[in-house]
Amino acid sequence: MKKGCPFGTHRVIEPQGVLPQPANRIDNDMAIYDNEILIDVQTLNIDSASFTQIKEEAGGNIEKIKAIMKKIVETKGKHQNPVTGSGGMLIGRVEKIGPALEGKCPLKVGDKIATLVSLSLTPLKIDEIHEVRKDIDQVDIQGKAILFESGIYAVIPEDLPENLALSVLDVAGAPAQTAKLVKPGDTVMVIGGAGKSGMLCLYEAKKRAGITGKVICLTHSEKSIKRVQEAQLADEYIVADATNAVEVMEKVKRVTDGQMADIVINCVNVPNTEMASILAAKDDGLIYFFSMATNFTKAALGAEGVGRDTTMIMGNGYTKGHAEIALQIMRESEPLRKVYEELYA
Amino acid sequence: MKKGCPFGTHRVIEPQGVLPQPANRIDNDMAIYDNEILIDVQTLNIDSASFTQIKEEAGGNIEKIKAIMKKIVETKGKHQNPVTGSGGMLIGRVEKIGPALEGKCPLKVGDKIATLVSLSLTPLKIDEIHEVRKDIDQVDIQGKAILFESGIYAVIPEDLPENLALSVLDVAGAPAQTAKLVKPGDTVMVIGGAGKSGMLCLYEAKKRAGITGKVICLTHSEKSIKRVQEAQLADEYIVADATNAVEVMEKVKRVTDGQMADIVINCVNVPNTEMASILAAKDDGLIYFFSMATNFTKAALGAEGVGRDTTMIMGNGYTKGHAEIALQIMRESEPLRKVYEELYA
Repeated sequence: MKKGCPFGTHRVIEPQGVLPQPANRIDNDMAIYDNEILIDVQTLNIDSASFTQIKEEAGGNIEKIKAIMKKIVETKGKHQNPVTGSGGMLIGRVEKIGPALEGKCPLKVGDKIATLVSLSLTPLKIDEIHEVRKDIDQVDIQGKAILFESGIYAVIPEDLPENLALSVLDVAGAPAQTAKLVKPGDTVMVIGGAGKSGMLCLYEAKKRAGITGKVICLTHSEKSIKRVQEAQLADEYIVADATNAVEVMEKVKRVTDGQMADIVINCVNVPNTEMASILAAKDDGLIYFFSMATNFTKAALGAEGVGRDTTMIMGNGYTKGHAEIALQIMRESEPLRKVYEELYA
Repeated sequence: MKKGCPFGTHRVIEPQGVLPQPANRIDNDMAIYDNEILIDVQTLNIDSASFTQIKEEAGGNIEKIKAIMKKIVETKGKHQNPVTGSGGMLIGRVEKIGPALEGKCPLKVGDKIATLVSLSLTPLKIDEIHEVRKDIDQVDIQGKAILFESGIYAVIPEDLPENLALSVLDVAGAPAQTAKLVKPGDTVMVIGGAGKSGMLCLYEAKKRAGITGKVICLTHSEKSIKRVQEAQLADEYIVADATNAVEVMEKVKRVTDGQMADIVINCVNVPNTEMASILAAKDDGLIYFFSMATNFTKAALGAEGVGRDTTMIMGNGYTKGHAEIALQIMRESEPLRKVYEELYA
């Protein structure tokens, strides 16, 4: 059996010398290396920005969505959207564990896991696409995938429905980072607060900012704000177009008595919301960009352009304990769990 | 005289409702609004990533470079490279100050200033291009520009040569952020340490990390590392290809006895160096991306893909006192000033 690199560089076909994520094409042959785990895939959870793009390209047609997804995997050996660059995650059962991982890895054959590394670097083969669940970005397939030695995963918890767990794990990084950033008394605004990751961020922000803090939910429609209000996830609610920086700034000014936000968390998967994030924050505030639609240059030059000394953090999908933190929300919050079950599971 | 918005939204032509930086086209009519400053431009300092792209597109031909630059400004009303999205800065004399700024702004007509906001949002008109200084990304022109009320600037100091000051101010954000991030005892690596911003970062890192810290310079060639060594800017020197994450990781492992870096500062203006930055840092390390070639998705998914809990900060070109901090280096360090004068001024 061949020996593999912890990061999966042995699978890279083109260009040589890079890691699997930036590679254009990786080897999706399903004979495993000594430090790899073979997964019998059941469901793909496509990254929201990626799936939105695929749906648009397909004009909403299911067969066209399937064809686009198959073509991506055939071309690249992984499900990395060529337009957005992003992937998603998957759920499946452990089928084979490389001998070099014995004693190092708590998994056993048959365990049901969710991979918490992006599909944009995961060797994948799709034999058949069974079902496309358009509204929740989930696709059931018959196929196989490879988890590298450095790849992170979560065993699906027994006390939560599988699809619910999968939906939460897909965005686990955002609420866990929120939990680590927010301090008592902070004014926190979540842009895209009614979305999949946004609601979890609001919950953690409110829990950490506490009674002396203020949590603001910004969303684009009255309709979506209603469900957040019913679940009592925020202290203030703003309906605004997040691509309109000036409108957002004026509305945040109003609900904060001109103080603006200590922390802005951007969870909205549409382009051109960098400036609204910057102008909503205090001059010495912190902005956490979790949206994959974030443009580095627009944020960096945008802050400079308005002379703002804000700290801007790029959302890292992984932080220690992120799966545990995110799943725990579903146990703690009955109303949020209900919303999640209705919308995503 | 017309009243303007502090951020210059009154100049945006297309699309409506955005700020000048993300706009495709802004109004470069040189009749000022009540809160604008008119500048008689002398020199443009084009962003390094942008100028590299323009030079490549022009095949190094000076007349073609001029034509590309003129076309950009004619099309967009500002010098924002359509490929890289980035701008640069300019130097010139204050020609007119809007009446709404009287008493609010310490400038007077005739002052020589450098604008510290990006050219990617600055209304600009080029009448003629006098000289293209290819090796230092500087272009002398006859033309006018507008500074908005929120726009930051520095008066050119009298004790430093003008071109030297301009070169330093162009990258002032990076060393100033470095000064604020690095603590005594830190291991700091600067990727692109022999470059224009990299050398200033090394200087500040060494000053702050001190005798108990370790500063590592990574650069792509033996030749460029020599000048950094002569100026004694770092404790360790690595020659490596920053797009090769695995090579960089191995070399950093060697010079840090396997400990890796607390802080990695990425100043190299080439794409695909995100992973090298991530793998060079400790698991709980901090990465500061100053390079405009940084890709948000590659960094965010890359860290997740290798299960690293690193904090990744997007380089904000502005931080309080950045001009003062950066210019002071030229007064403090005789060898660094010599290098700067030779290469950039």
